[in-house]
Amino acid sequence: MRRFIRTERKKAGLSPGTLVHVGEKKADHVRIRVIDYDQENLEERELQSIDECVPYRDKPTVSWINIDGLHDVDVIEKLGQTFNLHPLVLEDIMNADQRPKMEDYENYIFIICKMLSYDDKEDRLNIEQFSLLLLPGVIISFQEKPGDVFNPVRERMRKGKGRIRKMGMDYLMYALLDAVVDNYFIVLENIGERIEDLEEELIASPGPETLQAIHHLKRELIFLRKSVWPLREAISGLEREELDLIQEKTTVYLRDVYDHTIQVIDTIETYRDMVSGVLDVYLSSVSNKMNEVMKVLTIIATIFMPMTFIAGIYGMNFKHMPELDTNWGYPAVWLVIIVIGVIMLVYFRRKKWL
Amino acid sequence: MRRFIRTERKKAGLSPGTLVHVGEKKADHVRIRVIDYDQENLEERELQSIDECVPYRDKPTVSWINIDGLHDVDVIEKLGQTFNLHPLVLEDIMNADQRPKMEDYENYIFIICKMLSYDDKEDRLNIEQFSLLLLPGVIISFQEKPGDVFNPVRERMRKGKGRIRKMGMDYLMYALLDAVVDNYFIVLENIGERIEDLEEELIASPGPETLQAIHHLKRELIFLRKSVWPLREAISGLEREELDLIQEKTTVYLRDVYDHTIQVIDTIETYRDMVSGVLDVYLSSVSNKMNEVMKVLTIIATIFMPMTFIAGIYGMNFKHMPELDTNWGYPAVWLVIIVIGVIMLVYFRRKKWL
Amino acid sequence: MRRFIRTERKKAGLSPGTLVHVGEKKADHVRIRVIDYDQENLEERELQSIDECVPYRDKPTVSWINIDGLHDVDVIEKLGQTFNLHPLVLEDIMNADQRPKMEDYENYIFIICKMLSYDDKEDRLNIEQFSLLLLPGVIISFQEKPGDVFNPVRERMRKGKGRIRKMGMDYLMYALLDAVVDNYFIVLENIGERIEDLEEELIASPGPETLQAIHHLKRELIFLRKSVWPLREAISGLEREELDLIQEKTTVYLRDVYDHTIQVIDTIETYRDMVSGVLDVYLSSVSNKMNEVMKVLTIIATIFMPMTFIAGIYGMNFKHMPELDTNWGYPAVWLVIIVIGVIMLVYFRRKKWL
Amino acid sequence: MRRFIRTERKKAGLSPGTLVHVGEKKADHVRIRVIDYDQENLEERELQSIDECVPYRDKPTVSWINIDGLHDVDVIEKLGQTFNLHPLVLEDIMNADQRPKMEDYENYIFIICKMLSYDDKEDRLNIEQFSLLLLPGVIISFQEKPGDVFNPVRERMRKGKGRIRKMGMDYLMYALLDAVVDNYFIVLENIGERIEDLEEELIASPGPETLQAIHHLKRELIFLRKSVWPLREAISGLEREELDLIQEKTTVYLRDVYDHTIQVIDTIETYRDMVSGVLDVYLSSVSNKMNEVMKVLTIIATIFMPMTFIAGIYGMNFKHMPELDTNWGYPAVWLVIIVIGVIMLVYFRRKKWL
Amino acid sequence: MRRFIRTERKKAGLSPGTLVHVGEKKADHVRIRVIDYDQENLEERELQSIDECVPYRDKPTVSWINIDGLHDVDVIEKLGQTFNLHPLVLEDIMNADQRPKMEDYENYIFIICKMLSYDDKEDRLNIEQFSLLLLPGVIISFQEKPGDVFNPVRERMRKGKGRIRKMGMDYLMYALLDAVVDNYFIVLENIGERIEDLEEELIASPGPETLQAIHHLKRELIFLRKSVWPLREAISGLEREELDLIQEKTTVYLRDVYDHTIQVIDTIETYRDMVSGVLDVYLSSVSNKMNEVMKVLTIIATIFMPMTFIAGIYGMNFKHMPELDTNWGYPAVWLVIIVIGVIMLVYFRRKKWL
Repeated sequence: MRRFIRTERKKAGLSPGTLVHVGEKKADHVRIRVIDYDQENLEERELQSIDECVPYRDKPTVSWINIDGLHDVDVIEKLGQTFNLHPLVLEDIMNADQRPKMEDYENYIFIICKMLSYDDKEDRLNIEQFSLLLLPGVIISFQEKPGDVFNPVRERMRKGKGRIRKMGMDYLMYALLDAVVDNYFIVLENIGERIEDLEEELIASPGPETLQAIHHLKRELIFLRKSVWPLREAISGLEREELDLIQEKTTVYLRDVYDHTIQVIDTIETYRDMVSGVLDVYLSSVSNKMNEVMKVLTIIATIFMPMTFIAGIYGMNFKHMPELDTNWGYPAVWLVIIVIGVIMLVYFRRKKWL
Repeated sequence: MRRFIRTERKKAGLSPGTLVHVGEKKADHVRIRVIDYDQENLEERELQSIDECVPYRDKPTVSWINIDGLHDVDVIEKLGQTFNLHPLVLEDIMNADQRPKMEDYENYIFIICKMLSYDDKEDRLNIEQFSLLLLPGVIISFQEKPGDVFNPVRERMRKGKGRIRKMGMDYLMYALLDAVVDNYFIVLENIGERIEDLEEELIASPGPETLQAIHHLKRELIFLRKSVWPLREAISGLEREELDLIQEKTTVYLRDVYDHTIQVIDTIETYRDMVSGVLDVYLSSVSNKMNEVMKVLTIIATIFMPMTFIAGIYGMNFKHMPELDTNWGYPAVWLVIIVIGVIMLVYFRRKKWL
Repeated sequence: MRRFIRTERKKAGLSPGTLVHVGEKKADHVRIRVIDYDQENLEERELQSIDECVPYRDKPTVSWINIDGLHDVDVIEKLGQTFNLHPLVLEDIMNADQRPKMEDYENYIFIICKMLSYDDKEDRLNIEQFSLLLLPGVIISFQEKPGDVFNPVRERMRKGKGRIRKMGMDYLMYALLDAVVDNYFIVLENIGERIEDLEEELIASPGPETLQAIHHLKRELIFLRKSVWPLREAISGLEREELDLIQEKTTVYLRDVYDHTIQVIDTIETYRDMVSGVLDVYLSSVSNKMNEVMKVLTIIATIFMPMTFIAGIYGMNFKHMPELDTNWGYPAVWLVIIVIGVIMLVYFRRKKWL
Repeated sequence: MRRFIRTERKKAGLSPGTLVHVGEKKADHVRIRVIDYDQENLEERELQSIDECVPYRDKPTVSWINIDGLHDVDVIEKLGQTFNLHPLVLEDIMNADQRPKMEDYENYIFIICKMLSYDDKEDRLNIEQFSLLLLPGVIISFQEKPGDVFNPVRERMRKGKGRIRKMGMDYLMYALLDAVVDNYFIVLENIGERIEDLEEELIASPGPETLQAIHHLKRELIFLRKSVWPLREAISGLEREELDLIQEKTTVYLRDVYDHTIQVIDTIETYRDMVSGVLDVYLSSVSNKMNEVMKVLTIIATIFMPMTFIAGIYGMNFKHMPELDTNWGYPAVWLVIIVIGVIMLVYFRRKKWL
Repeated sequence: MRRFIRTERKKAGLSPGTLVHVGEKKADHVRIRVIDYDQENLEERELQSIDECVPYRDKPTVSWINIDGLHDVDVIEKLGQTFNLHPLVLEDIMNADQRPKMEDYENYIFIICKMLSYDDKEDRLNIEQFSLLLLPGVIISFQEKPGDVFNPVRERMRKGKGRIRKMGMDYLMYALLDAVVDNYFIVLENIGERIEDLEEELIASPGPETLQAIHHLKRELIFLRKSVWPLREAISGLEREELDLIQEKTTVYLRDVYDHTIQVIDTIETYRDMVSGVLDVYLSSVSNKMNEVMKVLTIIATIFMPMTFIAGIYGMNFKHMPELDTNWGYPAVWLVIIVIGVIMLVYFRRKKWL
């Protein structure tokens, strides 16, 4: 949980727009890559400093500047000057705990969303902030660390296949958002499998670990929901608000991402319902097992207590106990005991305890 | 649950509009059937290829092209070219995990919904995607596999009875949606019967299987809800958005389907409430049973423990135990024991434990 | 529960507008009664066929045609032709499982609602569909069976007292809806009394029947809510949508019915909260009782087990047990046993178990 | 609970606007008091009949006519004629089970709300209906019984201090509503104290009475919420709907009452959450206590059962039991028993049962 | 809980606008500090009386008048006269139990919010009311006691760094609100840590104190939510309502505070879900532990009861018990007892009770 409001504390009290990196430092140094393309050509290179971005800003081609690593204040500040960005935008970029949102500044659009991945080793959801600036002719994207879900997008750009090279930077923005949302389905599938595993475990051999696992899954779903839910509104804003930077023919694609986001949210809700159901079944099965244990205890106690009582009676040392002296006394006691036992068993069977 | 986000993974990262079949392959080969009619004539045939659709596209009559099987990329691609469809529409058609929706493209309307059936053998809900394109004079529908709920519609078309032959392709669209929604009632009736069975089982002989059945039903209702809920909005859109392709006299029929959809959703909610109620009763009855078991145990223990103690006392081997030598000792002990037993029984009866 | 989607199955697949009676046949034959009135005169008669309705349709007076029994397709069809009704309206009239609604067809208004009554014998809620057509100068109402809540309305019409004879057919519509909604309060009072009874039973002697009764009540409230909730929207539509057939001076009366409907819904919600509360108390009281049983068991076991052990010790047959030979041995054992018992009792009292 | 839909039954079926008193008769006779004032003078008197109201209706001063007791049909009817009120308004005034609401009739405004008080003796919430008519220059208010929360308002009027004498009848209406809402805080404080008491009782000595008290409080909160919730909308309507009878400078005061109402609702919701929390803690503490009881039982049984078994063994009467003849047999048995006991205790301590 | 509607009672019945301090008296005397600045100069001093404020009101520079302590009626009244404030505003300032809100009076804006801090000693949330008046060129702020979260803001003003000295009094208002909301994150982090601690405690050694702690946390979250939730609407009003006193370039900053408020609310909701989850796990672990205790009890009882019975049998004193006289009798009994014990153990292992 500390992952979510981790280091807001560091920032509290500072002047708004002061650049402080909030979040874990996940990358060693900042890496700036640019892909610049139009329908005919594509250039791909790694930049050493923000200054090298200037030509891309002024060229009529579409340029995608991707920055891995958010911890270097100088880089972000320089970028802000170069592209004339609002200080609050820079602050939000450096703060990795933002809520997904879309903001329309007159000359550019600013989008924040979350890249998710499931860390199988630590068995927890990894949440990485991905922010994106849409300027005329330029897209600048920010990631917390190297490694992302955009390789297929890059591949399509390189091959020059598909619409991506023909349409503008707004289509590229769509392609990136689409890649992010598509990736959510992989995380969801992973969680879906774990719910199924849990349900099988529940039938096979539920134990306290099962409860831990249910609880863990429930928490991951809470965090997942928190990361995806606000994205719905952000993408809806992109599609509906008639922004200058987004062409009308792109909105149909944005509607598609919107549909996918809704589907992700729907599935998260379904999973939450299912995990609740699994918890109910777990609790009931614990209760049922206890019930069974109680029955065994009761049957044993109920059968042996009267028998032991009878044996106790004839263990008494009274001088005058006529039964003790008869030959039939001992077998008769056995008979009585067996009869009592049989009656009990019949009674319990009729009560459906056996 | 894997049924729901099964194979999104396959698609993640591909270019938007790339045609990949997502879903189980439920049909061996693609089957294309066409029904072409106006008020006087009706022609019904099976097409070998999409090319044969072209004349129907251009004729003034109403044509219903139905395609069973979504796995063949070539067929869908060809269709897209023939009818000039947006690539995202084709992608959605091939992806059997879509959420019900209605989309208005300038020249055509695209609708996705779910055909439900209850598989009695496997005792689970089957969900098949049904998508529908409404073009001027042509309806194209897509199903995952042969076999559907539209035979009564076909029969009415063949017999030339009713409004269906007199009105346009928008009325046909309505007739198909109406058939889909009407079929939901059959699935609901099935589920309703199972809830009733559960309630009877609950009174007769509840057991751990009852819990499994409740849980199973709960999950089916979650999935059912997920399949039907968004349809409400889709049909409401058809009715209200003043679409060019839908005549005003058809909207009154669409309002009727809309009402039915609301009724289905209402009933699903009612069923969810009822299943929750059944679960509550089940849990309480388990708890009550345990209570009863506890009472028996306590009564037996409480009656026999003092008795056994008394017998134990006179089983001691002290030299000096005056009672042992008396003649009345033994019957007196029996008397004490019986008195204790009676007092206990009276006490329990007053506590309403018996 | 089958009462609610009973026979939709019968209808699924038929052409829309096909007239099939859906619902239990509650009346033997269809009975048509008409009350025709203006400020001066009132005529009341029973019609033999729909044809006799024609004069009332064309007269300037207000006519109320009431039809008991929905099963006769011919009657409804004839009526449809006489008054030029939309086939979907006729279908809805014959289908007794409709959701309450209000529909504005250009020349008439169609309203569906539910008449409720509490069947004390079978101890269940009876739900009867009441539909109403408001045409210029004519009101046609449909009931499933003879017997209704409108006798006071008829009485007021006959006596010529009050506004009802002076105002138009829209006021009559209001009067009928008002009678239906007023009757809900009687059903609610009945349910309110049963909740009170339950609460008293809960204090006096709760048992498994109490749980059954709570569950039963909960279900009746689910169905009641389902029957009343959509009426809110329907009446709100009548009041707000500026319909031609409804005069402005009548809307203030409709606002009154609307307020009553809201009050009914409020009370249903309150009752649901209360029944939930009763269930909580029941479960807690079961749990408390079990707790008490456990305590008795534990006290008995805890007191007698050590005592029996001590008696057991001195029942052993070792040759060398010096205590056995002393005179004080036996009374000493009694002393020890009594001391142990007293210590236990003091301990339990301090733990507040006694 | 019968307090809420008590006597609707009496009314069902009557003509709308028929005057029937619905509710408990709380006052012996109807008492009419009038306060008539402008900035210079104030006259206060008790009227014998409604006829005496006429001069106040026609004077330019502000008059507040307060009527205690709703049971007298004649009085209300006369009042209706004198001030030309709609019959439905009169009906609502006499029916003490109305939902709070605000209705704008062209020439007057009609407001219903609830005066609450906490009856410490019967330990229940008393709900009294307060309705108010705002006519030009006249306010007529209706209470079920003498005694209200308006004495401070009257005092301010008499003293001529503050704004009340300078502003119009709309400000007086505000002052009355403000007094009603301010009084809710006193009821809330009372309930707040009882929640605190409950929490202390929960720690000190929870018992079945605690559960009764929680349940009781929960119900009072349900009724409280039902009484206050709709007032929000009513006051919001007064403030926002630009009514002719309300001056703009008064709306800022109405916004203040509105804020207070929201605060009351907020606090009720908070209290409901808190009572739920208290219930959870109660149930858990019952469960914990049972757990503790179980542990004691198990420890006792687990320690003494093996010991008693060993004693039983050496109580057997076999001829050939070599141990019995040894001198060390008896102390050895004691040793074994003590060792078993110690091992058990260590085991339980390690399991944290002790 | 009394902290929330503590002393409304004191006020109920008074004339609206009557100044009465509602809330705990947290400061000894009222302290008035002013910071007056423009881009070049900054003056900071402590005022002895409200009269000294007058020059600041009339100067073109921005002045921030901060008042610590709300209990002095004279001071607030004087202030009201000096700045011509509405009596209801003064009343709200003195009542420390207000709900956060924003009100637009024509010449000034009035904002109420809550300053939160976590009192580690008493282990509870401290809530202090902070109200703020935005007049042309002047900001007046009110705190219940000295000590606040604005020192970083003051520091930035003194150093003349950043935007704060260049922009108007609306930016100062933003800076203050931002400081308040930023501080919420610190409180949230504190609570987040306690949830983590609870979860660890839950695994290590849950006890009744754990339940108390969960309950305590749940209540703090209820109060936290009540304090923050309405702020959302207040800030949204500031941003959207196109108020004259707020320049357009400031709204982008207000949008930022709004985003932070949403994030705080989101996190509170997440925490509530998490605490609910923790409670579920706690209850299950209690139940699991009980289950384990029951199993031990049952195993012990089930193993020793038959054994003790057998020992009891051969402790009987019948003359004619042939087994007793054999040499193999005693070892045979031991054998039987051991065999029974082993069978039981195997049975329990197969049932997974061991």
